[in-house]
Amino acid sequence: MRPTAFPTPQDAEQAFYEALQRCDLEAMMAVWAEDEEIVCIHPGGPRLTGLRAVRESWREIFSGGPSLRVQVNNIVATQAMLVAVHNVQENFSIAGNPKAVAPALATNVYLKTAAGWRMIVHHASPASDPGQTRGSTHEKPQVLH
Amino acid sequence: MRPTAFPTPQDAEQAFYEALQRCDLEAMMAVWAEDEEIVCIHPGGPRLTGLRAVRESWREIFSGGPSLRVQVNNIVATQAMLVAVHNVQENFSIAGNPKAVAPALATNVYLKTAAGWRMIVHHASPASDPGQTRGSTHEKPQVLH
Repeated sequence: MRPTAFPTPQDAEQAFYEALQRCDLEAMMAVWAEDEEIVCIHPGGPRLTGLRAVRESWREIFSGGPSLRVQVNNIVATQAMLVAVHNVQENFSIAGNPKAVAPALATNVYLKTAAGWRMIVHHASPASDPGQTRGSTHEKPQVLH
Repeated sequence: MRPTAFPTPQDAEQAFYEALQRCDLEAMMAVWAEDEEIVCIHPGGPRLTGLRAVRESWREIFSGGPSLRVQVNNIVATQAMLVAVHNVQENFSIAGNPKAVAPALATNVYLKTAAGWRMIVHHASPASDPGQTRGSTHEKPQVLH
């Protein structure tokens, strides 16, 4: 039984980054859709497809225990009925050393399922500069349909 | 006037990679939605948002003329009414030297608009190995709804 049903994509996204920071594997996997088509790419890593490979990757990442802090900003969001697509800047730092920031860019895709909004894609890649964006940026999601 | 209205996300994706290989800026921009929320991340590059920044980046990339070949495979696709999400492996090579392959992973998101399917997100990042995928892979798109 999974008690969590995220009423919005933003709720799912918040739970994703909270689980990541807490190294909470069950909370992390509760964010993902129960679907063999889910895709997860960690920065610089291979493409992982399906619940088993995605779960195993987070288990490995979390095995060292919580030491990362992550701050998410500069969200660009598009929502069209059943799917929400967010692109975010992730700023990782090590607990106790907030100045050493490793920035990444992530595309997060959420699907509205019978059990609420769930993640189906997390594609993260290293960004060379925390402030590296060009063009318009909005903090509010845009609903197209 | 844009004559092209892509009837499926696959048509838009094919046009995207054909335009990329031909260095055809107008054909490339005809694939993108006319929306200030479009997002494009070239491998290792910054996040570009909006038509102007995206167009300028392709203009720069195409300025050297067609020299790249790109082969796309291992597609994982999810389609839910108005949005299609594809994750693909891109294998770039230089014309005349097909053995020197630079692999990338790309998440491509398409939106069904009044003018057919258009791209709203292209997030590409370097992949260290052309065969780097783990988990289930299907060549056929899965339609969830």
